[in-house]
This record gives sequence, structure tokens and C-alpha cells, in this order.
Amino acid sequence: MINYYIQPNDNPELTEERKKCSFDTQKLAALYYGSYEKLKKRREFEEFVKNLPEFQNEKPTVFMDRLERFDVNSKKCVTFFEHFFNEVDTSNPDEASMFYDKFFSYEGSPLSLHFFVFLPNILNSMSGKQQEYWLNLVMEKKIIGTYAQTEMGHGTNLRKLETTATYDKESDSFIINSPTITSTKWWPGNLGKTCNVCIVIAQLYIEGKCYGPHSFMVQIRDFNNHMPLPGISVGDIGPKFAFSSIDNGFIRFNNVKIPREFMFMKYAQVEKGGKYCKPIHEKAAYGSMVFVRSVMILQQAQYLAMACTIATRYSCIRRQGELDDKTREVKVLDYQTQQYRIFPQLARAWAFVCSGKYIIDLYNKVNEDMSSGNVDLLPQLHCLTSGLKAVVSFQAGLGIEQCRMSCGGHGYSHASGLPSIYATQIGGCTYEGENMVMLQQCSRYLMKIAQSVKNKENTLKNDKLFGYYFENYNNSKYKSIQKIFETISHHKTMEVYNQLNKLKESGMSHETAWNSCAVDLCQAAKAHIRVFLSLVYTEFVNKIDDQNLKSVLGLLKELWEKYELMKISSSVLKYSLLTPNEIDKIKIEIYEILKKIRPQAVSIVDSFDFSDRDLVSVLGRRDGNVYENLLKWAQSSELNQFEVLPSHKKYLLPMTNGNIQSKL
Amino acid sequence: MINYYIQPNDNPELTEERKKCSFDTQKLAALYYGSYEKLKKRREFEEFVKNLPEFQNEKPTVFMDRLERFDVNSKKCVTFFEHFFNEVDTSNPDEASMFYDKFFSYEGSPLSLHFFVFLPNILNSMSGKQQEYWLNLVMEKKIIGTYAQTEMGHGTNLRKLETTATYDKESDSFIINSPTITSTKWWPGNLGKTCNVCIVIAQLYIEGKCYGPHSFMVQIRDFNNHMPLPGISVGDIGPKFAFSSIDNGFIRFNNVKIPREFMFMKYAQVEKGGKYCKPIHEKAAYGSMVFVRSVMILQQAQYLAMACTIATRYSCIRRQGELDDKTREVKVLDYQTQQYRIFPQLARAWAFVCSGKYIIDLYNKVNEDMSSGNVDLLPQLHCLTSGLKAVVSFQAGLGIEQCRMSCGGHGYSHASGLPSIYATQIGGCTYEGENMVMLQQCSRYLMKIAQSVKNKENTLKNDKLFGYYFENYNNSKYKSIQKIFETISHHKTMEVYNQLNKLKESGMSHETAWNSCAVDLCQAAKAHIRVFLSLVYTEFVNKIDDQNLKSVLGLLKELWEKYELMKISSSVLKYSLLTPNEIDKIKIEIYEILKKIRPQAVSIVDSFDFSDRDLVSVLGRRDGNVYENLLKWAQSSELNQFEVLPSHKKYLLPMTNGNIQSKL
Repeated sequence: MINYYIQPNDNPELTEERKKCSFDTQKLAALYYGSYEKLKKRREFEEFVKNLPEFQNEKPTVFMDRLERFDVNSKKCVTFFEHFFNEVDTSNPDEASMFYDKFFSYEGSPLSLHFFVFLPNILNSMSGKQQEYWLNLVMEKKIIGTYAQTEMGHGTNLRKLETTATYDKESDSFIINSPTITSTKWWPGNLGKTCNVCIVIAQLYIEGKCYGPHSFMVQIRDFNNHMPLPGISVGDIGPKFAFSSIDNGFIRFNNVKIPREFMFMKYAQVEKGGKYCKPIHEKAAYGSMVFVRSVMILQQAQYLAMACTIATRYSCIRRQGELDDKTREVKVLDYQTQQYRIFPQLARAWAFVCSGKYIIDLYNKVNEDMSSGNVDLLPQLHCLTSGLKAVVSFQAGLGIEQCRMSCGGHGYSHASGLPSIYATQIGGCTYEGENMVMLQQCSRYLMKIAQSVKNKENTLKNDKLFGYYFENYNNSKYKSIQKIFETISHHKTMEVYNQLNKLKESGMSHETAWNSCAVDLCQAAKAHIRVFLSLVYTEFVNKIDDQNLKSVLGLLKELWEKYELMKISSSVLKYSLLTPNEIDKIKIEIYEILKKIRPQAVSIVDSFDFSDRDLVSVLGRRDGNVYENLLKWAQSSELNQFEVLPSHKKYLLPMTNGNIQSKL
Repeated sequence: MINYYIQPNDNPELTEERKKCSFDTQKLAALYYGSYEKLKKRREFEEFVKNLPEFQNEKPTVFMDRLERFDVNSKKCVTFFEHFFNEVDTSNPDEASMFYDKFFSYEGSPLSLHFFVFLPNILNSMSGKQQEYWLNLVMEKKIIGTYAQTEMGHGTNLRKLETTATYDKESDSFIINSPTITSTKWWPGNLGKTCNVCIVIAQLYIEGKCYGPHSFMVQIRDFNNHMPLPGISVGDIGPKFAFSSIDNGFIRFNNVKIPREFMFMKYAQVEKGGKYCKPIHEKAAYGSMVFVRSVMILQQAQYLAMACTIATRYSCIRRQGELDDKTREVKVLDYQTQQYRIFPQLARAWAFVCSGKYIIDLYNKVNEDMSSGNVDLLPQLHCLTSGLKAVVSFQAGLGIEQCRMSCGGHGYSHASGLPSIYATQIGGCTYEGENMVMLQQCSRYLMKIAQSVKNKENTLKNDKLFGYYFENYNNSKYKSIQKIFETISHHKTMEVYNQLNKLKESGMSHETAWNSCAVDLCQAAKAHIRVFLSLVYTEFVNKIDDQNLKSVLGLLKELWEKYELMKISSSVLKYSLLTPNEIDKIKIEIYEILKKIRPQAVSIVDSFDFSDRDLVSVLGRRDGNVYENLLKWAQSSELNQFEVLPSHKKYLLPMTNGNIQSKL
């Protein structure tokens, strides 16, 4: 079979690996991107963008300060819009997003929030008439927007947001105000310096009565000179772990007046005179949160896939130490410890890809249902996206760091690209819902299921994802790993449910009882997500027609499930699902699978089809010419523009060179 | 009892916490720093340095580019030397190092390698006469040095370093040369722009014969103008995950000649004419490696302690969500999940502190032995420092990230200080020996012990740290956690030893058999280190006289051992050391311990006695005035020097503002 990534003048270490390929990399890449057409389109965009004059001799962003990053990215924004409408089928959001990705690195751009949060919010939460007005301004590129929800003092507990929007009957408008320091909006991307309008979430007040948080469109900067409008104080919140190219901002409102029509009115409405109309579906407002979390899964999977690509390729170039052959050092990927560090991450990356694809399909189905007024599946989707987001973002972070450390010292250099990938990805554990809170949102639904199980209701008995809760696990002894995962999840959920009820029956309030069980509730959520991952991974692999492809992804899936099993072997033993000997056997099998993956590893990561521009990594270069390019890369260090640093001349040289010869 | 950190105008949220203190924070701080005198000296230095004119209105380093950092730090170097000899008892290395710490942040300075690696190497590996010559130059501040071992192509496998030092009989000198790209020295700190001399590790060649790696002193820059000397190409290797204030460098030698006497001659010697004299103790050369790893443990513990301090204090200021009282949101530290994230890290920080203190004492003892020619304990020390370095650096990293994430969004901002602490600390998993290699160095010694156990030799039977291997674990059922840890370690070591021998008996080479068992060998090393940590933690707590102190550290130790037990509950069940019910009981006990630690948490972290200058964290401020200072901190963002960014004016404004009014 064929690895299509072989080119002349590549490092022979990688060519040797690629020649071992047992499948068609084109087919695996098409599977990853969803279809051959999407893969092709993505490659066309890569070629198109790569050849634009603005993208020649790009300097890696790690060598730039923030102002320079903004200069480069703002220029790219203009170029982006010059070509966007010609090159992209704008009716296809996938295409638009692929085109965007090829312009901007994963660290973001002035348009990040505009495209991925601001625009979807207009589409999802404005009335038709409002949409027409604002979309027109978007299409004409008059406005760049963002979404301001989080405040300095409140992220998780949205009900306690402090920004107010008070209806003023006389002028038929809302007054937006920031009453305290902690009410300062804090974190919204692109808010600090880029946006001229912004969706503000504020407590709606009408005649002294609070109606809870609602969305309002607020112009924050003058369209002609981009200065903040009166009553508005806005700026950048300063450097973060990553996302230096994004001006996450703060904003304070000093009684800023906006027209009544600038409230988002698809769901709730305020009429002239102040009459408030409740939304029909309370839950519909969750929609956009659930959407972002759904999309996040594939994005998180991609960060991990990038790290795996870099680590795997470099591990076939790095030679260190000897095994049997004393005449040549071995490729470090031949060490069992190295395989054990990297391959389970690769297996997880694919697990997350499968679940990400699944959850987006599910979202689309639920969204369709919702437009016809059916919100039945929303709680399930909310449960899954919350739990999945937490598990995937956390494990992706661990995995990326393992990949980075597996590259030794060079992994610690920004030349590897890995520190930036980690620092960017790991934000996902916090944004869009802190992970501990997410796990508990997931388990909240699991407690409802447990209640049904107790009550012998079986409405969900045939549900693909939750139905297993209604089976009888007490007398059965399953040997399939899927069934083991299910048994453990079932027990963990039911145990914490019983504990929770016991505490409540002893007189504890629901809140305090919940808090006393919170760690176990999180464990139950993780156990259920493991069942879900296992299910969709298996289903995904089973559906593959091509036998070579099925065989290699099957190996990854087998590694994934056995690796996960080892992680929870304590529960496996606790519930007597396997004997210690059986577990030891599985451990040995894992080492055997690692050996089988070894010759395919480079071809598997090649098939993610990341370009060198995507990875921004000297270690992960497709051509494998690492060492000479490390030296070249280092030349760009800002310190290397001087043979002798000005600070050295000024301070250290006078200190050292009194009364001494030039040379010893 | 008293918490001494209460001051007027503090955030009452923290004062309230501090008033609950059940012990004397002064005493705990003295325990942490080793004695009350050291604590006092440290505080004196803090006051002294804080009040120097150079340190007024310091700008946080995260707002500086690298050139600015070098400017600030170089200036500080001059100030440092102005005061060093007056303020510090230079015969006391602890004092010197404390004084240094108060000048420079943990991200390093131009003098980092000079003090902590270059100087110790002169003291440890040069002959007396050599020392006299070079120390004189050091004292006169004529030279700033570093240590160049790692090359682009070799870090772990030092025997394969490619730089050569060839003896030239005619001129009685060595020729230092870099024959390949991969032989380029890569990574040494301060090498790129700061140092004018450097210890180079190179393969010694005499008349065509290679004698392996040796150390050579090489002048690399002109003392008068600081330009690189002929034949030398040197520079910065570019940005890394952290340590932006250090110019990790590369250097290439094109046949650079140095006097024969510049070889380090304490152990091996080359006489005039080229006669080579072997060192008496081959192992003595390990000394400096073992020393650095010993010191690292306390340093790693300190990073984790810093993160715990920030997370614990901030968790008492942040209020989010409600429990029973609906009139006020609760401090997030009242959530079980938050306690479960932070307190085990605090317990680990103290475990690492105890082990760090222990290992330094052991190093000093071994070093003393060695100077009288006794190297018996060196293999044990090498085993312990290798394994401990791997376990501590990895767990500290996990812990810091848990602390960071527990601060929610604000933890992701550099305002928290946590991203820098993590990025700096996590380097410890890689430098001074990659962790997977370290674990295997540890288990190499464990395999020797296993051999003794098999052979029924019992030379180590009474050894405090390794003696437990010689007990009989097959028929005994221990219930103390220490004994459980020992039993598991014993079994893991013996099992992998047996597996290794089985493979070798089946005809496999030692190297291949080792590689097939490598993951299990790492597990065995970790299990032994757990025994060691448990032992020294218990010993440390038992030695405390003050009952209040003993009680609070005892709680941490109990949490640590039960938390560790849960992590390996699978092995506990496998070897039938406890029943599932007993394990579940311990889980519940952990939740109870968390509740007991809760009221003491702020006072415990206060007692690390970190100043606000040490922590560089808005979230971790002693006074707890977080929110107003977040806003103040953000003002320094480089983007905030412009109300409208130049890049916005240039690119985005022309794109958006055609033909539109100022305001909607």
C-alpha cells in the first residue's frame, strides 16, 4: 500500500518508515476530514494560501511580540476578505472554516470570535428582522464583533452576573451599566482592541424587577475613528498562557444607552413600554453553549493529533543509545517506553475524533428537532457534551505533554511547536465551562437516569447511549471490554446515587449532600463518558470498508480500550470483572500492540495531513530535516540580532573587563 | 495559636481564614526553611532587596520582551555584586543562594549557570592548583562561565557526544572541534550571549585513541570587547517554554586551541607529552550530576508550594455558587472538588520537601565518605536521586496544573503567575536526565537488589531504605499503609526481575530483554520511590516536637498516604492487601481529612513564607486584594499603550469604516 507523503530529498529515516505503510494514507486522511472532497478542498486552500505574497518567508509567531502579531494578523484579515468570497462556497460553513484555518494559526486572529461566536449568536438568537439588519453590517464588513458574558467576578454562576440592562421607558431604550469592579466584563476574545460591537450579557431590569441574564448588542467603538464611545472603558487584559494573538479584553459600561431593538429577541422579547414576553423553550438558550462544546471536541482532538505527529516523526529521526546492534544507535521510537508514551495518545486522538464527529451529528439532529419544537434530546446532548468536553480536554492536555516530553530537550524549545500547542489546547479545560463543573453537569443527568433505574421506569431502555443503565449487572459476568466499561459505569452511578439519597434522607440539604458526593459524581461522569467513547470508537471502526484501513484503526482502538481498562483496573478487580491474571495478560497484550503499531506509526500521523504551516514545528517537519533547520530557526532569535547585547555592553562588560588581557 | 500574616487593610476573606489557625505559622515556616535563623535571614534579605532603588516599581517580566529582560537582569547583576560581599556570609552557600533568589525570579538570570553549575564544577573537578587560578578570576568577576555538555544530537547518551578535544603534542595543547551539525553544543544556559568562558565536555583523543568524554575550560569571547574568539560561532537557541531570561545557547568550535592545563585534572590527567592517567574512582565523576538532582528536589517542591499558595488563597477570595445559605455565594474552597484538587498537591509538596531535605543530607554524607575514598553509598544515592527526580518533577507538574485550573479563567492569565511557574517547573522532567531514563537508572539498581534477594544475600537487610526488600512478603498480610507500599514495591521489583531473566534465558540479549520490560521497570522504580517518600515523610513528622505543628503536618501526611494508596488501589487488590470495602472506607476517610485541612489551608500555605515578589501573582497576593489589582495589572499590557492599535488604523479601520456613520 502507499504512503503518499514520500518526496525526494526527505530525510531517509522517514522515507524508510513510510515505505512500511500497510494502508492507503489518502484513504485514512479522507476518513479524518470526513470525505475525500473535503480533504481535496483543504489541500487546495493550503496551496492557495501558501502561495499568496503575504505568506512568503513567514516569521514564526514565537519570535514576535504582541504588537507585531497584531500587525501581521490584521494584514492577513484584509487579505482574507479579498479572497474569501471568490474562493469559498460561503453556504458551506466547513469550507469557510477551513479557509480561515489556513490563514491563521491556532493561536487566533482579530476575527476569531467574530466568525465563531458572534456570527452564530446572531443567527441563533436574533429575530429574523434583527438578523437582516446585523447580517447586512457583517457582510459589508462594517462591524467586527464579539460576545461578552464572563465577568471578572463570575464565570460559572451566570445567574449572578452583575452587569445590568435597565429598561428606560421614556426613551424606549436600555441602559447598560457596570455597577462594581467585579462586574467588569473580562476575557471576551478580540474585545480589547479589535471589536467595534459586542454582544453583552446583562441582567434585564424592567421597572425594578430583574428578569435574569439576556443578550444585548452594544456598539463600543466609533466606526470612524475606532475610539471607545462615551461611557465605555475598554482594553486588553494582558498576556495569557497562550493566545497572544488575541486581545482578550475587559469592558466597563457607565450607563450606556442602546435602542430597545438591540436586545436579542428571538426567544424573550421586551415590547415598547416595557412588556416582557418569556421565551417558549427555556432550554433553547442552551443551544449555543452546547454547539461550541460540540465543535470543541474535534478541535481538541486536532491539537493532540498535531502533538502526536511531531513526536512520532521526530522519534524516528532521533537516534540515541544502542540495543543489539552496537554499530548504530537506535531510533528512539524503538524503545518500549517511547511507544508507551506516544501510541496511547495517538489511540486517544482517534477516539476523540470519532466522538467529535458523532457529537456534531447528534447536535445537528437535536438542532433540527428543536426548530420543530422538540427539545427531548437536549438534556442527553447537554450531558454528553459537558462530560466529553471535560474528559477530552483533560486527556488531550496530558497526552500533548507526554508527546512533548518524549522529544526530550528539543521538545521544550518553541522550535518543536509543542509548548504553544499545549498552552493553547489546555485552555479548553477552563473555557466554555470549567471541567469540574462540566463533569457535575453530566452527572446531574446521570442521577436522573439512576432515579429511573430505581423506579423501574424504562423509557430509555432502548437508547443507544444510555440504555445500558437499565440492564441487570448484578449477576452477569461480562468479558468484553465494552461490557466491563458499562458495568463499572453502572455501578459507579448507582453507588453515588444511593449515597446521595442516604445523605438527604439523613436530613442534609440537596446542595450539601451533592457537595459531599461531588468527587464521586465526577468519577461517575467519567465512567459514563468512557462507555460513550468506547461505543462510538467501535462503531466508527466497524463501519470502515477498506480492510487495510480497518486493520490499522482497529489496532488503535484495541490499544485504546486495553489502555483504558488498565487505568481502571482497580474497579475491574473491585467488581470481580476480571482476575488479576487476566489483567496481567492484557498488560502484555498492550506491549504486543505497541510493536504492531510501530511500523505504521509515521504513516498514521502523516494521514492527519497537517502541512508544515499547520504544525509550525521544526521537529515535526514532513521532510524530517530537523537538525539543520534547528540551527536555521535559532538565527531568528531576537537576541541573535546582536553579536554583543546592548545590555551586556552597558552593565556586564564594564564589570568584567577591567585590567585584563583579551585572551587567557 | 497565631497566624503572623494578618495585616490591616487585608481582604477580610483572608483574615477570616487566618484567624482559624491552629498552630504557630512562624514555627511551620522555620521547619520549611530548616531553622528559624534561616527564615530570619531570608526575611532580612527580602527587606534589603525590596528597598533597593533598582527594585522600585518593578514591571512584571511577563510584560517584557527578552531584550528588556536582559537589560533589567544585567543591571541587577551589577547591583548584586555591589552588595553580595557586604551582606552575605560567603562561606555559607545557603545564604548566598537565598540572596541570589531574592534578586532574580525563578526564570533565571545571566548568572544562573555561573553560580549553580560552573562554580561547583570548578570546585569539584579541578585540581587544587587549577582551582586557585580560576577561582581568582571568578572572585575578580573577570569571567562568567557555564557548562556545555548537551549537543544537538546527544543528551542522554553521553558516550556518543561528538565534540572532540585532540591532544596536540607539538604545542602541548588541545584542539576543540565540532565535526558535524549534530555535534553543535545546544542548550547550555547563559552560553548564547553572556558567558566569556565555558566548560566543554568533549571526547578526549590522544594519538588517535579515544579516552571518552572529559571536561575542558575554553575561553569563548574576548575579555575586552566580548566578541566571539576566532573559530567560535556562538548564539542563542531561541525561545523556549519558559526561561526567557536565560540565553540558552549553541556553540560550534572550528579547531580552537587551548592550553593542556585547561583540561579538568582532579580525576583524569593528561601529562605533557600526552600520557593519560586514569581517574582512581570511575564513579566519582557522577558526583556533580547526583548533586544537581539532589538540589532539584527541593526546588521542584518549591514550585509546587508556590502554586498551592496561589490556588489556596484565591479559592478563599473567589465566591461562586450557593450551598445552603442562599443569601451569599460560597468560597470555592468549600467545594469538595476544589479541596480534592488542591489539598493533595499541598500534601505532596510537603512530601517532596521532606524527601528533598533527606536527600541533601544523604548527599552530604556520601560526599564526605567519598573524600575519604569510600564510594559504597554512591549507587544507592544515584538510584534514589534518579527515581526521585523523575517522580517529583512529574507529580509537581501535574499538581501545579491542577492548582492553575482550580483558579478557573484567571488561572490561565499570566496575572496568576501560574503559567510561568508551570512552564518553568516542567522543564525539570527533561533537564538533568530525561525522566524515563531516570526511572530506568533507578530500576537498574533495584534489579541488583532483586538479584541479592534471589541469591539470599542479605548485605542490605538492615538498610533503612532498601532493607524491606529482604523481608518475606508472601505470607504476611500487612495493614499499615507503609507496609502496603513496601509489599507492592517488593512484588513489582521481583516480578519484573523474573520476567527479565525469563526473557534472557529464552535467548534474548540483555538490552532487548530490558527494552521489553522497560515500562514495568519504570513502574517498579516508582513503587520504590513511593516507599521512600512514605518513609521520610513519616520520619519527618514524627520528629516534630510542637504538638500543634505535628497535628497539622500529620493531617497532610495522612492525606498523602491515603491519596497515594487510592492511586495504586489496583495493586492493593491484586495482592489482596485490602478488601474493596476497606478501600472504600479509606476513600471516605480522605473526604473527611479534606474537611479537617480546610480551615488550616490558608495558614499552611502562608507558612511557606513566600513574599509577593517571590510569587509574582495577582491571585496569590498576601493581602488578598485580587480584583482591583487585576484591573491595575492589565494596564501594563503592551496593547494598552494605544487606545487604537497602529495595526488597526493601518488595516482594519480602512476595511470597516467606508461610508458609515460614527454610531448606529
